[in-house]
Amino acid sequence: MEAPGKMSSENPARIRRLIRRGEINQPTPGLAEEYSQANLVILPEEYAFEFFLFSFRNTKPCPLLDILEAGEVNPPSTPGADIRTDLPSYRIYRRGELHEETDSIKDYWRDDLVSFLLGCSFTFERALKQAGIPIRHQQENKNVPMYITDIDCTPAGEFSGPLVVSMRPMPGRLISRAVRITSAYPDVHGAPVHIGAPKEIGIQNLNEPDFGDRVTVKPEEYPVFWACGVTPQLAIRKNALPLVITHSPGHMFITDIKNEELSRDQPASGQFV
Amino acid sequence: MEAPGKMSSENPARIRRLIRRGEINQPTPGLAEEYSQANLVILPEEYAFEFFLFSFRNTKPCPLLDILEAGEVNPPSTPGADIRTDLPSYRIYRRGELHEETDSIKDYWRDDLVSFLLGCSFTFERALKQAGIPIRHQQENKNVPMYITDIDCTPAGEFSGPLVVSMRPMPGRLISRAVRITSAYPDVHGAPVHIGAPKEIGIQNLNEPDFGDRVTVKPEEYPVFWACGVTPQLAIRKNALPLVITHSPGHMFITDIKNEELSRDQPASGQFV
Repeated sequence: MEAPGKMSSENPARIRRLIRRGEINQPTPGLAEEYSQANLVILPEEYAFEFFLFSFRNTKPCPLLDILEAGEVNPPSTPGADIRTDLPSYRIYRRGELHEETDSIKDYWRDDLVSFLLGCSFTFERALKQAGIPIRHQQENKNVPMYITDIDCTPAGEFSGPLVVSMRPMPGRLISRAVRITSAYPDVHGAPVHIGAPKEIGIQNLNEPDFGDRVTVKPEEYPVFWACGVTPQLAIRKNALPLVITHSPGHMFITDIKNEELSRDQPASGQFV
Repeated sequence: MEAPGKMSSENPARIRRLIRRGEINQPTPGLAEEYSQANLVILPEEYAFEFFLFSFRNTKPCPLLDILEAGEVNPPSTPGADIRTDLPSYRIYRRGELHEETDSIKDYWRDDLVSFLLGCSFTFERALKQAGIPIRHQQENKNVPMYITDIDCTPAGEFSGPLVVSMRPMPGRLISRAVRITSAYPDVHGAPVHIGAPKEIGIQNLNEPDFGDRVTVKPEEYPVFWACGVTPQLAIRKNALPLVITHSPGHMFITDIKNEELSRDQPASGQFV
Protein backbone atom coordinates (compact mmCIF):
# COMPACT_ATOMS: atom_id res chain seq x y z
CA MET A 1 0.00 0.00 0.00
CA GLU A 2 1.12 3.56 -0.61
CA ALA A 3 2.30 5.78 2.21
CA PRO A 4 -0.43 7.83 3.95
CA GLY A 5 1.67 10.92 3.33
CA LYS A 6 1.08 10.69 -0.38
CA MET A 7 -2.54 9.64 0.02
CA SER A 8 -3.41 12.82 1.90
CA SER A 9 -3.24 14.87 -1.30
CA GLU A 10 -4.79 12.24 -3.57
CA ASN A 11 -8.04 12.86 -5.39
CA PRO A 12 -11.04 11.18 -3.82
CA ALA A 13 -12.05 9.14 -6.89
CA ARG A 14 -8.68 7.37 -6.87
CA ILE A 15 -8.88 6.68 -3.13
CA ARG A 16 -12.40 5.28 -3.48
CA ARG A 17 -11.21 3.02 -6.33
CA LEU A 18 -8.44 1.63 -4.11
CA ILE A 19 -10.95 1.08 -1.30
CA ARG A 20 -13.37 -0.66 -3.69
CA ARG A 21 -10.60 -3.04 -4.80
CA GLY A 22 -9.68 -3.80 -1.18
CA GLU A 23 -6.27 -2.14 -1.53
CA ILE A 24 -7.13 0.32 1.25
CA ASN A 25 -8.91 -1.05 4.33
CA GLN A 26 -7.63 1.34 6.99
CA PRO A 27 -9.55 4.14 8.77
CA THR A 28 -9.94 7.13 6.45
CA PRO A 29 -8.68 10.15 8.49
CA GLY A 30 -5.77 11.72 6.62
CA LEU A 31 -6.87 10.39 3.20
CA ALA A 32 -7.69 12.96 0.48
CA GLU A 33 -7.53 15.65 3.16
CA GLU A 34 -8.99 18.42 1.01
CA TYR A 35 -12.28 16.56 0.69
CA SER A 36 -15.09 16.07 3.18
CA GLN A 37 -15.65 12.69 4.75
CA ALA A 38 -19.14 11.59 5.74
CA ASN A 39 -20.93 9.32 8.19
CA LEU A 40 -23.22 6.75 6.55
CA VAL A 41 -26.63 5.50 7.72
CA ILE A 42 -28.69 3.13 5.53
CA LEU A 43 -32.16 1.93 6.50
CA PRO A 44 -35.37 0.66 4.89
CA GLU A 45 -37.58 3.29 3.27
CA GLU A 46 -40.38 2.67 5.74
CA TYR A 47 -38.22 4.25 8.47
CA ALA A 48 -36.66 6.94 6.24
CA PHE A 49 -39.09 9.77 7.00
CA GLU A 50 -38.73 9.42 10.77
CA PHE A 51 -34.94 9.19 10.62
CA PHE A 52 -34.90 12.22 8.30
CA LEU A 53 -37.04 14.04 10.88
CA PHE A 54 -34.71 13.01 13.72
CA SER A 55 -31.80 14.51 11.77
CA PHE A 56 -33.80 17.68 10.96
CA ARG A 57 -34.59 18.13 14.66
CA ASN A 58 -30.98 17.49 15.73
CA THR A 59 -28.88 19.17 13.08
CA LYS A 60 -25.87 19.71 15.34
CA PRO A 61 -25.13 15.96 15.71
CA CYS A 62 -26.89 14.98 12.43
CA PRO A 63 -26.02 17.51 9.70
CA LEU A 64 -27.33 16.01 6.45
CA LEU A 65 -24.89 16.34 3.56
CA ASP A 66 -26.62 14.16 0.99
CA ILE A 67 -29.47 11.66 0.73
CA LEU A 68 -29.92 8.83 -1.78
CA GLU A 69 -33.40 7.76 -2.82
CA ALA A 70 -34.60 4.22 -2.20
CA GLY A 71 -32.41 1.80 -4.15
CA GLU A 72 -29.99 4.50 -5.37
CA VAL A 73 -26.30 3.65 -4.97
CA ASN A 74 -24.63 6.75 -6.51
CA PRO A 75 -24.70 9.81 -4.20
CA PRO A 76 -25.91 12.94 -6.09
CA SER A 77 -23.02 14.93 -4.60
CA THR A 78 -20.46 12.28 -5.63
CA PRO A 79 -21.98 10.62 -8.71
CA GLY A 80 -19.04 8.39 -9.58
CA ALA A 81 -19.11 6.62 -6.23
CA ASP A 82 -20.94 3.42 -5.23
CA ILE A 83 -22.22 3.57 -1.67
CA ARG A 84 -22.16 -0.28 -1.45
CA THR A 85 -18.42 -0.73 -2.00
CA ASP A 86 -16.56 2.55 -1.54
CA LEU A 87 -16.16 2.55 2.26
CA PRO A 88 -13.38 0.42 3.77
CA SER A 89 -15.67 -1.13 6.37
CA TYR A 90 -19.41 -1.35 7.12
CA ARG A 91 -21.42 -2.52 10.12
CA ILE A 92 -24.63 -4.49 9.63
CA TYR A 93 -27.14 -4.24 12.49
CA ARG A 94 -30.15 -6.51 12.82
CA ARG A 95 -32.73 -5.64 15.51
CA GLY A 96 -30.18 -3.32 17.11
CA GLU A 97 -27.45 -5.97 17.42
CA LEU A 98 -24.19 -5.95 15.46
CA HIS A 99 -24.57 -8.79 12.96
CA GLU A 100 -21.43 -8.44 10.82
CA GLU A 101 -18.57 -6.13 9.88
CA THR A 102 -17.84 -6.28 6.14
CA ASP A 103 -16.01 -4.45 3.33
CA SER A 104 -18.95 -4.59 0.88
CA ILE A 105 -22.70 -4.50 1.36
CA LYS A 106 -23.60 -5.76 -2.11
CA ASP A 107 -25.02 -8.97 -0.61
CA TYR A 108 -27.26 -6.96 1.70
CA TRP A 109 -28.47 -4.46 -0.90
CA ARG A 110 -32.23 -4.09 -1.47
CA ASP A 111 -34.27 -1.69 -3.61
CA ASP A 112 -35.99 -0.22 -0.56
CA LEU A 113 -32.79 0.93 1.18
CA VAL A 114 -32.33 4.69 1.67
CA SER A 115 -28.83 6.08 2.36
CA PHE A 116 -28.07 9.18 4.41
CA LEU A 117 -24.65 10.88 4.39
CA LEU A 118 -23.99 13.06 7.45
CA GLY A 119 -21.25 15.63 7.89
CA CYS A 120 -18.15 14.74 9.90
CA SER A 121 -15.99 16.96 12.08
CA PHE A 122 -12.85 15.68 10.32
CA THR A 123 -13.84 18.30 7.69
CA PHE A 124 -12.88 21.27 9.88
CA GLU A 125 -9.77 19.68 11.42
CA ARG A 126 -7.66 20.88 8.51
CA ALA A 127 -8.88 24.47 9.03
CA LEU A 128 -8.11 24.18 12.76
CA LYS A 129 -4.60 22.89 12.06
CA GLN A 130 -3.97 25.67 9.56
CA ALA A 131 -4.89 28.16 12.31
CA GLY A 132 -2.31 26.62 14.63
CA ILE A 133 -4.73 24.61 16.77
CA PRO A 134 -3.35 21.18 17.69
CA ILE A 135 -5.40 18.10 16.77
CA ARG A 136 -4.24 15.84 19.56
CA HIS A 137 -5.62 12.53 18.21
CA GLN A 138 -3.86 13.17 14.91
CA GLN A 139 -0.61 14.04 16.74
CA GLU A 140 -0.88 10.79 18.70
CA ASN A 141 -2.03 8.77 15.68
CA LYS A 142 -5.30 7.80 17.31
CA ASN A 143 -9.02 7.96 16.63
CA VAL A 144 -10.81 11.01 18.11
CA PRO A 145 -12.21 10.35 21.64
CA MET A 146 -16.03 10.30 21.78
CA TYR A 147 -18.34 10.37 24.82
CA ILE A 148 -22.03 9.69 25.48
CA THR A 149 -23.47 12.74 27.30
CA ASP A 150 -26.54 13.08 29.52
CA ILE A 151 -28.11 15.53 27.03
CA ASP A 152 -31.13 14.09 25.22
CA CYS A 153 -31.69 14.64 21.52
CA THR A 154 -35.13 15.86 20.41
CA PRO A 155 -37.03 12.64 19.59
CA ALA A 156 -38.77 11.97 16.26
CA GLY A 157 -41.17 9.06 16.06
CA GLU A 158 -39.35 5.98 17.33
CA PHE A 159 -35.93 7.64 17.21
CA SER A 160 -34.42 9.05 20.40
CA GLY A 161 -31.18 8.90 22.33
CA PRO A 162 -28.40 10.87 23.99
CA LEU A 163 -26.07 13.36 22.30
CA VAL A 164 -22.61 11.95 21.58
CA VAL A 165 -19.67 14.40 21.47
CA SER A 166 -16.12 14.32 20.14
CA MET A 167 -13.37 16.02 22.16
CA ARG A 168 -10.28 18.00 21.21
CA PRO A 169 -8.15 19.44 24.05
CA MET A 170 -6.48 22.85 23.73
CA PRO A 171 -5.08 25.72 25.85
CA GLY A 172 -7.46 28.55 26.81
CA ARG A 173 -5.84 31.05 24.45
CA LEU A 174 -6.90 28.97 21.41
CA ILE A 175 -10.52 28.21 22.37
CA SER A 176 -12.05 31.40 21.00
CA ARG A 177 -10.28 30.84 17.66
CA ALA A 178 -11.52 27.25 17.50
CA VAL A 179 -15.11 28.36 18.16
CA ARG A 180 -14.96 31.01 15.45
CA ILE A 181 -13.41 28.70 12.86
CA THR A 182 -15.82 25.82 13.40
CA SER A 183 -18.87 28.16 13.55
CA ALA A 184 -18.30 28.66 9.85
CA TYR A 185 -18.93 24.93 9.21
CA PRO A 186 -22.57 24.38 10.24
CA ASP A 187 -22.89 21.34 7.94
CA VAL A 188 -20.17 19.42 9.78
CA HIS A 189 -21.34 19.98 13.39
CA GLY A 190 -20.39 23.67 13.57
CA ALA A 191 -19.36 25.35 16.83
CA PRO A 192 -18.62 23.38 20.03
CA VAL A 193 -21.58 22.38 22.24
CA HIS A 194 -19.57 22.58 25.50
CA ILE A 195 -16.19 23.78 26.78
CA GLY A 196 -14.44 22.54 29.93
CA ALA A 197 -16.26 20.87 32.91
CA PRO A 198 -16.99 17.39 31.48
CA LYS A 199 -19.24 16.40 34.42
CA GLU A 200 -21.70 19.16 33.50
CA ILE A 201 -22.68 17.15 30.43
CA GLY A 202 -22.52 13.77 32.15
CA ILE A 203 -18.95 12.73 31.27
CA GLN A 204 -17.42 11.17 34.39
CA ASN A 205 -13.93 10.39 33.15
CA LEU A 206 -12.16 11.94 30.15
CA ASN A 207 -9.73 9.02 30.16
CA GLU A 208 -12.51 6.55 29.37
CA PRO A 209 -14.13 7.57 26.10
CA ASP A 210 -17.17 5.55 24.99
CA PHE A 211 -15.85 5.37 21.41
CA GLY A 212 -12.48 6.06 19.82
CA ASP A 213 -9.26 6.46 21.78
CA ARG A 214 -8.08 8.20 24.93
CA VAL A 215 -5.80 11.17 24.14
CA THR A 216 -3.44 13.25 26.30
CA VAL A 217 -4.95 16.34 27.92
CA LYS A 218 -2.11 18.55 29.16
CA PRO A 219 -2.41 20.38 32.53
CA GLU A 220 -2.93 23.78 30.89
CA GLU A 221 -5.58 22.48 28.45
CA TYR A 222 -9.38 22.42 28.48
CA PRO A 223 -11.48 19.77 26.74
CA VAL A 224 -13.59 21.23 23.89
CA PHE A 225 -16.63 19.17 22.83
CA TRP A 226 -18.35 19.04 19.44
CA ALA A 227 -21.59 17.24 18.54
CA CYS A 228 -20.68 13.94 16.90
CA GLY A 229 -22.01 11.87 14.00
CA VAL A 230 -22.09 8.73 16.17
CA THR A 231 -25.23 10.20 17.81
CA PRO A 232 -27.67 8.81 15.19
CA GLN A 233 -26.10 5.35 15.48
CA LEU A 234 -27.23 5.19 19.12
CA ALA A 235 -30.73 6.41 18.20
CA ILE A 236 -30.93 3.72 15.52
CA ARG A 237 -29.68 0.85 17.62
CA LYS A 238 -32.02 1.69 20.48
CA ASN A 239 -34.84 1.48 17.97
CA ALA A 240 -34.01 -2.14 17.01
CA LEU A 241 -34.92 -1.84 13.32
CA PRO A 242 -34.82 -5.10 11.32
CA LEU A 243 -31.86 -3.85 9.26
CA VAL A 244 -29.52 -0.86 9.55
CA ILE A 245 -26.16 -0.44 7.85
CA THR A 246 -23.55 2.14 8.93
CA HIS A 247 -19.87 2.81 8.31
CA SER A 248 -17.50 1.30 10.86
CA PRO A 249 -16.21 4.03 13.23
CA GLY A 250 -13.41 5.96 11.52
CA HIS A 251 -14.03 4.25 8.16
CA MET A 252 -15.90 7.09 6.49
CA PHE A 253 -17.21 7.78 3.00
CA ILE A 254 -14.90 10.18 1.11
CA THR A 255 -17.02 12.62 -0.90
CA ASP A 256 -16.18 14.81 -3.89
CA ILE A 257 -17.17 17.83 -1.77
CA LYS A 258 -14.20 20.08 -0.98
CA ASN A 259 -13.92 21.07 2.70
CA GLU A 260 -14.13 24.75 1.88
CA GLU A 261 -17.45 24.24 0.06
CA LEU A 262 -18.92 23.49 3.49
CA SER A 263 -17.61 26.74 4.98
CA ARG A 264 -20.22 29.46 5.30
CA ASP A 265 -17.50 32.02 4.62
CA GLN A 266 -17.02 30.78 1.08
CA PRO A 267 -18.80 32.29 -1.93
CA ALA A 268 -22.26 30.78 -2.37
CA SER A 269 -22.53 27.84 -4.78
CA GLY A 270 -25.16 25.32 -5.83
CA GLN A 271 -28.50 25.59 -7.57
CA PHE A 272 -30.44 28.88 -7.33
CA VAL A 273 -27.63 30.46 -5.26
CA MET B 1 -63.32 43.19 12.69
CA GLU B 2 -60.44 45.18 14.13
CA ALA B 3 -58.35 47.48 11.96
CA PRO B 4 -55.28 45.90 10.34
CA GLY B 5 -53.21 48.72 11.84
CA LYS B 6 -53.77 47.42 15.31
CA MET B 7 -53.47 43.79 14.26
CA SER B 8 -49.94 44.31 12.93
CA SER B 9 -48.52 44.52 16.45
CA GLU B 10 -50.75 41.85 17.98
CA ASN B 11 -49.30 38.69 19.45
CA PRO B 12 -49.64 35.63 17.20
CA ALA B 13 -51.61 33.51 19.69
CA ARG B 14 -54.40 36.08 19.78
CA ILE B 15 -54.48 36.38 15.98
CA ARG B 16 -54.65 32.58 15.63
CA ARG B 17 -57.51 32.47 18.14
CA LEU B 18 -59.47 35.02 16.08
CA ILE B 19 -58.75 33.02 12.91
CA ARG B 20 -59.86 29.78 14.62
CA ARG B 21 -63.17 31.39 15.60
CA GLY B 22 -63.69 32.69 12.06
CA GLU B 23 -63.36 36.31 13.14
CA ILE B 24 -60.40 36.79 10.77
CA ASN B 25 -60.67 35.28 7.29
CA GLN B 26 -58.54 37.73 5.30
CA PRO B 27 -55.05 37.12 3.84
CA THR B 28 -52.43 37.26 6.59
CA PRO B 29 -49.78 39.77 5.33
CA GLY B 30 -49.53 42.61 7.83
CA LEU B 31 -50.87 40.56 10.76
CA ALA B 32 -48.55 40.10 13.79
CA GLU B 33 -45.74 41.57 11.68
CA GLU B 34 -42.95 40.68 14.10
CA TYR B 35 -43.61 36.97 13.65
CA SER B 36 -42.79 34.66 10.76
CA GLN B 37 -45.55 33.36 8.56
CA ALA B 38 -45.26 29.96 6.93
CA ASN B 39 -46.43 28.00 3.88
CA LEU B 40 -48.26 24.77 4.73
CA VAL B 41 -48.13 21.41 2.93
CA ILE B 42 -49.92 18.36 4.35
CA LEU B 43 -49.73 14.93 2.75
CA PRO B 44 -50.05 11.23 3.65
CA GLU B 45 -47.06 9.72 5.44
CA GLU B 46 -46.36 7.35 2.57
CA TYR B 47 -45.26 10.37 0.46
CA ALA B 48 -43.60 12.25 3.33
CA PHE B 49 -40.04 11.02 2.79
CA GLU B 50 -39.99 11.94 -0.90
CA PHE B 51 -41.51 15.37 -0.30
CA PHE B 52 -39.01 15.94 2.53
CA LEU B 53 -36.25 14.97 0.08
CA PHE B 54 -37.62 17.34 -2.59
CA SER B 55 -37.46 20.16 -0.02
CA PHE B 56 -33.96 19.15 1.08
CA ARG B 57 -32.77 19.23 -2.54
CA ASN B 58 -34.45 22.58 -3.24
CA THR B 59 -33.94 24.58 -0.07
CA LYS B 60 -34.16 27.98 -1.78
CA PRO B 61 -37.84 27.56 -2.73
CA CYS B 62 -38.59 25.02 0.05
CA PRO B 63 -36.90 26.11 3.28
CA LEU B 64 -38.27 23.83 6.01
CA LEU B 65 -39.17 25.68 9.20
CA ASP B 66 -40.95 22.91 11.07
CA ILE B 67 -42.35 19.42 10.50
CA LEU B 68 -45.16 17.67 12.37
CA GLU B 69 -45.11 13.88 12.74
CA ALA B 70 -47.92 11.78 11.33
CA GLY B 71 -51.18 12.70 13.06
CA GLU B 72 -49.64 15.58 15.05
CA VAL B 73 -51.63 18.83 14.98
CA ASN B 74 -49.52 21.09 17.26
CA PRO B 75 -46.34 22.40 15.57
CA PRO B 76 -43.26 21.91 17.83
CA SER B 77 -42.19 25.50 17.12
CA THR B 78 -45.67 26.88 17.98
CA PRO B 79 -47.09 24.36 20.47
CA GLY B 80 -50.31 26.25 21.29
CA ALA B 81 -51.49 26.24 17.67
CA ASP B 82 -53.68 23.70 15.88
CA ILE B 83 -52.66 23.19 12.27
CA ARG B 84 -56.24 22.10 11.35
CA THR B 85 -58.00 25.35 12.29
CA ASP B 86 -55.51 28.20 12.67
CA LEU B 87 -55.16 29.26 9.04
CA PRO B 88 -57.88 31.47 7.51
CA SER B 89 -58.20 29.31 4.39
CA TYR B 90 -57.02 25.91 3.15
CA ARG B 91 -57.04 24.20 -0.24
CA ILE B 92 -57.85 20.51 -0.55
CA TYR B 93 -56.40 18.77 -3.60
CA ARG B 94 -57.43 15.30 -4.72
CA ARG B 95 -55.41 13.65 -7.50
CA GLY B 96 -53.89 17.04 -8.32
CA GLU B 97 -57.25 18.80 -8.74
CA LEU B 98 -58.59 21.50 -6.43
CA HIS B 99 -61.44 19.82 -4.55
CA GLU B 100 -62.46 22.45 -2.02
CA GLU B 101 -61.39 25.68 -0.30
CA THR B 102 -62.29 25.65 3.41
CA ASP B 103 -61.57 27.40 6.73
CA SER B 104 -61.04 24.17 8.71
CA ILE B 105 -59.61 20.78 7.78
CA LYS B 106 -60.94 18.90 10.81
CA ASP B 107 -63.24 16.85 8.58
CA TYR B 108 -60.30 15.82 6.40
CA TRP B 109 -57.92 14.99 9.24
CA ARG B 110 -56.38 11.50 9.39
CA ASP B 111 -53.73 9.98 11.65
CA ASP B 112 -51.37 9.38 8.73
CA LEU B 113 -51.15 13.04 7.65
CA VAL B 114 -47.75 14.74 7.93
CA SER B 115 -47.55 18.56 7.96
CA PHE B 116 -44.64 20.63 6.64
CA LEU B 117 -44.22 24.34 7.41
CA LEU B 118 -42.02 26.20 4.92
CA GLY B 119 -40.50 29.65 5.32
CA CYS B 120 -42.12 32.62 3.60
CA SER B 121 -40.47 35.73 2.17
CA PHE B 122 -42.96 37.94 4.06
CA THR B 123 -40.54 37.37 6.96
CA PHE B 124 -37.81 39.57 5.48
CA GLU B 125 -40.12 42.28 4.12
CA ARG B 126 -40.11 44.08 7.46
CA ALA B 127 -36.28 44.15 7.44
CA LEU B 128 -36.31 45.47 3.86
CA LYS B 129 -38.77 48.21 4.75
CA GLN B 130 -36.73 49.21 7.78
CA ALA B 131 -33.74 49.61 5.44
CA GLY B 132 -35.75 51.98 3.24
CA ILE B 133 -36.52 49.49 0.47
CA PRO B 134 -40.06 49.88 -0.91
CA ILE B 135 -42.35 46.84 -0.83
CA ARG B 136 -44.50 47.71 -3.81
CA HIS B 137 -47.29 45.16 -3.28
CA GLN B 138 -47.71 46.39 0.29
CA GLN B 139 -47.76 50.03 -0.91
CA GLU B 140 -50.43 49.10 -3.48
CA ASN B 141 -52.33 46.86 -1.03
CA LYS B 142 -51.91 43.80 -3.23
CA ASN B 143 -50.58 40.26 -3.01
CA VAL B 144 -46.96 39.82 -4.14
CA PRO B 145 -46.65 38.94 -7.87
CA MET B 146 -45.39 35.40 -8.51
CA TYR B 147 -44.16 33.80 -11.74
CA ILE B 148 -43.46 30.29 -13.00
CA THR B 149 -39.89 30.22 -14.39
CA ASP B 150 -38.25 27.87 -16.88
CA ILE B 151 -35.75 26.72 -14.23
CA ASP B 152 -36.31 23.12 -13.11
CA CYS B 153 -36.09 22.09 -9.48
CA THR B 154 -33.95 19.06 -8.62
CA PRO B 155 -36.41 16.14 -8.66
CA ALA B 156 -36.88 13.70 -5.76
CA GLY B 157 -38.81 10.52 -6.43
CA GLU B 158 -42.14 11.47 -7.99
CA PHE B 159 -41.75 15.15 -7.12
CA SER B 160 -40.53 17.59 -9.77
CA GLY B 161 -41.49 20.93 -11.27
CA PRO B 162 -40.40 24.45 -12.16
CA LEU B 163 -39.08 27.08 -9.75
CA VAL B 164 -41.66 29.74 -8.87
CA VAL B 165 -40.38 33.21 -7.92
CA SER B 166 -41.83 36.27 -6.18
CA MET B 167 -40.90 39.71 -7.49
CA ARG B 168 -40.23 43.06 -5.81
CA PRO B 169 -39.23 46.02 -8.04
CA MET B 170 -36.65 48.57 -6.87
CA PRO B 171 -34.16 51.13 -8.23
CA GLY B 172 -30.61 49.99 -8.93
CA ARG B 173 -29.13 51.86 -5.99
CA LEU B 174 -31.12 49.66 -3.54
CA ILE B 175 -30.48 46.22 -5.08
CA SER B 176 -27.17 45.52 -3.35
CA ARG B 177 -28.71 46.40 0.00
CA ALA B 178 -31.68 44.10 -0.64
CA VAL B 179 -29.35 41.22 -1.56
CA ARG B 180 -27.29 41.68 1.59
CA ILE B 181 -30.30 41.94 3.90
CA THR B 182 -32.10 38.89 2.54
CA SER B 183 -28.88 36.82 2.42
CA ALA B 184 -29.09 36.82 6.20
CA TYR B 185 -32.44 34.96 6.05
CA PRO B 186 -31.58 31.58 4.45
CA ASP B 187 -34.60 29.91 6.10
CA VAL B 188 -37.09 32.16 4.32
CA HIS B 189 -35.69 31.92 0.74
CA GLY B 190 -32.55 34.00 1.38
CA ALA B 191 -30.90 36.08 -1.36
CA PRO B 192 -32.56 36.73 -4.74
CA VAL B 193 -32.20 34.07 -7.45
CA HIS B 194 -32.28 36.59 -10.33
CA ILE B 195 -32.11 40.35 -10.93
CA GLY B 196 -33.46 42.17 -14.00
CA ALA B 197 -34.02 40.51 -17.44
CA PRO B 198 -37.21 38.48 -16.78
CA LYS B 199 -36.95 36.61 -20.12
CA GLU B 200 -33.68 35.01 -19.03
CA ILE B 201 -35.63 32.92 -16.53
CA GLY B 202 -38.60 32.32 -18.81
CA ILE B 203 -40.88 35.16 -17.69
CA GLN B 204 -42.45 36.68 -20.82
CA ASN B 205 -44.53 39.47 -19.31
CA LEU B 206 -44.06 41.05 -15.87
CA ASN B 207 -47.60 42.41 -16.08
CA GLU B 208 -49.08 38.91 -16.14
CA PRO B 209 -48.00 37.12 -12.96
CA ASP B 210 -49.01 33.45 -12.67
CA PHE B 211 -50.09 33.96 -9.04
CA GLY B 212 -50.80 37.04 -6.92
CA ASP B 213 -51.24 40.52 -8.35
CA ARG B 214 -49.60 42.75 -10.93
CA VAL B 215 -47.71 45.65 -9.32
CA THR B 216 -46.28 48.88 -10.74
CA VAL B 217 -42.68 48.73 -11.95
CA LYS B 218 -41.41 52.28 -12.39
CA PRO B 219 -39.16 53.19 -15.36
CA GLU B 220 -36.04 53.47 -13.21
CA GLU B 221 -36.68 50.17 -11.41
CA TYR B 222 -35.47 46.60 -11.93
CA PRO B 223 -37.44 43.49 -11.00
CA VAL B 224 -35.76 41.47 -8.25
CA PHE B 225 -36.78 37.81 -7.99
CA TRP B 226 -36.78 35.53 -4.92
CA ALA B 227 -37.48 31.78 -4.79
CA CYS B 228 -41.09 31.30 -3.69
CA GLY B 229 -42.94 28.87 -1.43
CA VAL B 230 -45.55 28.22 -4.13
CA THR B 231 -42.91 26.05 -5.86
CA PRO B 232 -43.71 22.87 -3.88
CA GLN B 233 -47.43 23.29 -4.60
CA LEU B 234 -46.72 22.86 -8.32
CA ALA B 235 -44.53 19.81 -7.66
CA ILE B 236 -47.30 18.30 -5.56
CA ARG B 237 -50.14 18.93 -8.00
CA LYS B 238 -48.19 17.52 -10.91
CA ASN B 239 -47.76 14.38 -8.87
CA ALA B 240 -51.55 13.86 -8.48
CA LEU B 241 -51.43 12.42 -4.96
CA PRO B 242 -54.74 11.11 -3.59
CA LEU B 243 -54.86 13.90 -0.97
CA VAL B 244 -52.83 17.06 -0.42
CA ILE B 245 -53.81 20.02 1.76
CA THR B 246 -52.13 23.45 1.51
CA HIS B 247 -52.85 26.99 2.70
CA SER B 248 -54.72 29.19 0.24
CA PRO B 249 -52.31 31.69 -1.38
CA GLY B 250 -51.67 34.60 0.99
CA HIS B 251 -53.51 32.87 3.87
CA MET B 252 -50.46 31.70 5.79
CA PHE B 253 -49.82 30.05 9.14
CA ILE B 254 -48.61 32.62 11.71
CA THR B 255 -45.89 31.04 13.87
CA ASP B 256 -44.53 31.95 17.29
CA ILE B 257 -41.10 32.36 15.64
CA LYS B 258 -39.90 35.98 15.68
CA ASN B 259 -38.60 37.22 12.33
CA GLU B 260 -35.20 38.03 13.79
CA GLU B 261 -34.80 34.43 15.04
CA LEU B 262 -34.54 33.45 11.36
CA SER B 263 -31.75 35.94 10.70
CA ARG B 264 -28.30 34.40 10.55
CA ASP B 265 -26.91 37.62 12.05
CA GLN B 266 -28.72 37.06 15.34
CA PRO B 267 -27.06 35.35 18.31
CA ALA B 268 -27.33 31.56 18.03
CA SER B 269 -30.30 29.95 19.77
CA GLY B 270 -31.88 26.51 19.98
CA GLN B 271 -30.78 23.15 21.29
CA PHE B 272 -27.03 22.41 21.46
CA VAL B 273 -26.19 25.89 20.13
